[in-house]
Amino acid sequence: MMPWRTLLLACCCLAPVLRAQTQPADLIISGGTIVTMNAQRTIYLDGAVVVRGDQIAAVGPRATLEHQYRAPQTIVAEGKLVLPGFINGHTHVPMTLFRGLHDDVPLDEWLHKYIFPAEAKNVNQDFVRWGTRLAVAEQIRSGVTTFADMYYFEDAVAEETKAAGMRGVLGETFLDFPAPDNKSNAEMLAYTEQFLKKWSGDPLIHAAAAPHSIYTCSKKTLEDASGLARKYHAPILIHVAEMKKERDDSERQNNMSPVEYLDHLGILADDVVAAHCIFVDEPDRKILAQRRVGCVHNPSSNMMLASGVAPVPEMLEAGVAVGLGTDGPAGSNNDLDLMEEIDLAAKLAKISRMNPLALNAPAAVAMATIEGARALHMDKEIGSLDSGKKADLILISLDHPNAVPLYDIYAQLAYSLKASDIETVLIGGRVVMRGHKLLTVDEQQAIIKAREYKNKIAASMAMP
Amino acid sequence: MMPWRTLLLACCCLAPVLRAQTQPADLIISGGTIVTMNAQRTIYLDGAVVVRGDQIAAVGPRATLEHQYRAPQTIVAEGKLVLPGFINGHTHVPMTLFRGLHDDVPLDEWLHKYIFPAEAKNVNQDFVRWGTRLAVAEQIRSGVTTFADMYYFEDAVAEETKAAGMRGVLGETFLDFPAPDNKSNAEMLAYTEQFLKKWSGDPLIHAAAAPHSIYTCSKKTLEDASGLARKYHAPILIHVAEMKKERDDSERQNNMSPVEYLDHLGILADDVVAAHCIFVDEPDRKILAQRRVGCVHNPSSNMMLASGVAPVPEMLEAGVAVGLGTDGPAGSNNDLDLMEEIDLAAKLAKISRMNPLALNAPAAVAMATIEGARALHMDKEIGSLDSGKKADLILISLDHPNAVPLYDIYAQLAYSLKASDIETVLIGGRVVMRGHKLLTVDEQQAIIKAREYKNKIAASMAMP
Repeated sequence: MMPWRTLLLACCCLAPVLRAQTQPADLIISGGTIVTMNAQRTIYLDGAVVVRGDQIAAVGPRATLEHQYRAPQTIVAEGKLVLPGFINGHTHVPMTLFRGLHDDVPLDEWLHKYIFPAEAKNVNQDFVRWGTRLAVAEQIRSGVTTFADMYYFEDAVAEETKAAGMRGVLGETFLDFPAPDNKSNAEMLAYTEQFLKKWSGDPLIHAAAAPHSIYTCSKKTLEDASGLARKYHAPILIHVAEMKKERDDSERQNNMSPVEYLDHLGILADDVVAAHCIFVDEPDRKILAQRRVGCVHNPSSNMMLASGVAPVPEMLEAGVAVGLGTDGPAGSNNDLDLMEEIDLAAKLAKISRMNPLALNAPAAVAMATIEGARALHMDKEIGSLDSGKKADLILISLDHPNAVPLYDIYAQLAYSLKASDIETVLIGGRVVMRGHKLLTVDEQQAIIKAREYKNKIAASMAMP
Repeated sequence: MMPWRTLLLACCCLAPVLRAQTQPADLIISGGTIVTMNAQRTIYLDGAVVVRGDQIAAVGPRATLEHQYRAPQTIVAEGKLVLPGFINGHTHVPMTLFRGLHDDVPLDEWLHKYIFPAEAKNVNQDFVRWGTRLAVAEQIRSGVTTFADMYYFEDAVAEETKAAGMRGVLGETFLDFPAPDNKSNAEMLAYTEQFLKKWSGDPLIHAAAAPHSIYTCSKKTLEDASGLARKYHAPILIHVAEMKKERDDSERQNNMSPVEYLDHLGILADDVVAAHCIFVDEPDRKILAQRRVGCVHNPSSNMMLASGVAPVPEMLEAGVAVGLGTDGPAGSNNDLDLMEEIDLAAKLAKISRMNPLALNAPAAVAMATIEGARALHMDKEIGSLDSGKKADLILISLDHPNAVPLYDIYAQLAYSLKASDIETVLIGGRVVMRGHKLLTVDEQQAIIKAREYKNKIAASMAMP
């Protein structure tokens, strides 16, 4: 990587050349340290981001851009960091309403004794709406501008996400047993086809199909779900190699690893987002890279459920795009704070290899931004501050004790700054949070509703 | 543990008996969910804490205590959690000014190429003052009311801590090479004796001696430092079995583990606080328990430096008191957020054993409170909300999306709530933060000074 000061000076020198014309724009983020996460990882110390419509029109030194562009609205970013919005590559947002329902139990017990019964008794469209609304608020507060979700009633997730002005890759779940929304595969297919059609071409919502995993979906279900997705050029979201048992069973039943099995079925391609990828060996990683599958690492969840440690450095080395995810906010995290995943991705890689060089701060920050965009196959659209990309960006305050002194921006982002330092969030050029105040979600209403749901859910589970 | 609803009802039944007299107090924390962390782990759903002077006069149901006590000041805690303040059992607070100076390098390189030169060039009394002031602000914001520190110019640390109204176990460092303050062991002894005398009997500051470790202190230095501490009934702070190399070297040189060696020297007793304790096997853990040594686990630091994973469940099982620490905020964390250590202690134990039951939320929260107090040998004074203990307590808001719904208080504390949810902090009955506003530290001045120090330190290291 070039030293960023050099780059900054290089860009400053262009200023006189570009000064000739003044172009209209809608909004200028002015001043502040612009951490572009572009290919050169350019950082502008006194920079600006020009927004026109839902896109970034220009990124560069403030002095230059303020001469080149005029806009009716300015957001002063002086003394702050400006970054591309974070990308939460894997979650189940309506499960906010089950946050902390039962923790510290084995996954199997958690699923069968608590979550499946709780879902059967409580999950309906209203539940999904309110759970999503709460999750959207929590995610915006932690700087997430795009998230990939897998749940039921995903159309309701999409409507809530759209209403909040968030960007989502939202997958309706396929399973070989009755789900809270669709009771058969035929129903799942019909629902999902309708869902994919409805959202086709939407600027914020990328509707997707989400065959849950190889251990919950038959060959036919996997093929049906991915076939349907491909008919509509929609992404495919799936859990892959999350559990040791999943790998062992696949090797016994299919004589193939989960990755090999999915590849054998023709499912792996550059429209697949594979969550977890813990038990992926070298041949698997080669396949994932060759097929251009995006992978999503969920360090909090993998630690909390004691699932295992994904070979992230090796995946990156093999050329696999690896993003970050919080996983669901119940039983496996329990929050939607992507900044904690940045910190944990680096620390978990280090301790699991007993090597402090295993994964560094710039790499972990990239996983939350541009590499996360690659993992969702959206890097042409989001993930860095480049002109022509969507204007999804966040302003981070440096005014709290944990933010100073500032020697190294990436280290500060990974290890010292917190979600609570995120002050302002734009998605597609729209300001969705300003000065810590959410503008597109009625957060208080969602919180009140979550408390009501708690009573209802606890009663359904005969809890105090 | 008894179900807390039962306990609550039991306590309510005492109300009529106690209602007879009305006693004066200084302050009542009224309403809210009181998470006492007492021996029975009583939780009062609509409780109160009565403060008189620097102590807790009573804890119980609100209705009962409001009849029993009158006070000129009330803090309404309705809808909030009230807990004993968190205890940061191991840190090096002035190092805030080196936060993020150079990360993602091996410990040896970090120490010798960056930190030791940076300390030699920059650490003086002024540095220590400002670094401490910044750290005190950051710690209060994350609910820490007591911290144990090891650094140089520790008297300046003590003065700043006292000025902020914080409680500290503050150890002046002993090493076998010249330190930024004292250049010889004779100077270290003289400085520390003066330091111990000065703060003797102070209600907030517990001055201590801190022989750094067995690999930086000779037998004589270890004995001199601990002998001096014992002369003044002061605690002894030391790093123990932090590195594999430390253990291997000790076994080769002394034919004993680090713990056995320290025990052999007569140093291990119920006035010792041992940080890290990663490489402690079963015989070591028996010794630590028998000698009533307090241990402090630093999960962030151990992960970031890839030092190893302390056998926390085994230490707890052996009866060792284990607290939590952030370690220094430079190179090994990089913040002073103890709530993240609660989360990580549980998650690191789970993933490192591939067992989701390895350490649960109630145990991790205890490590930050009552077990942390035991580890500092201060459990008669702090660590739980019990009458007669110091009035060190925190109010946590439940008004953000990450805080709801609330099924299980300990799970919420460990996995979902953040330092930024901490709203009000009392230490020794004094309100040091109210509604997120620090009352005893000029935080802005400390932040400005940290930025100035950054320029100075970067220049001294020929950094950009």
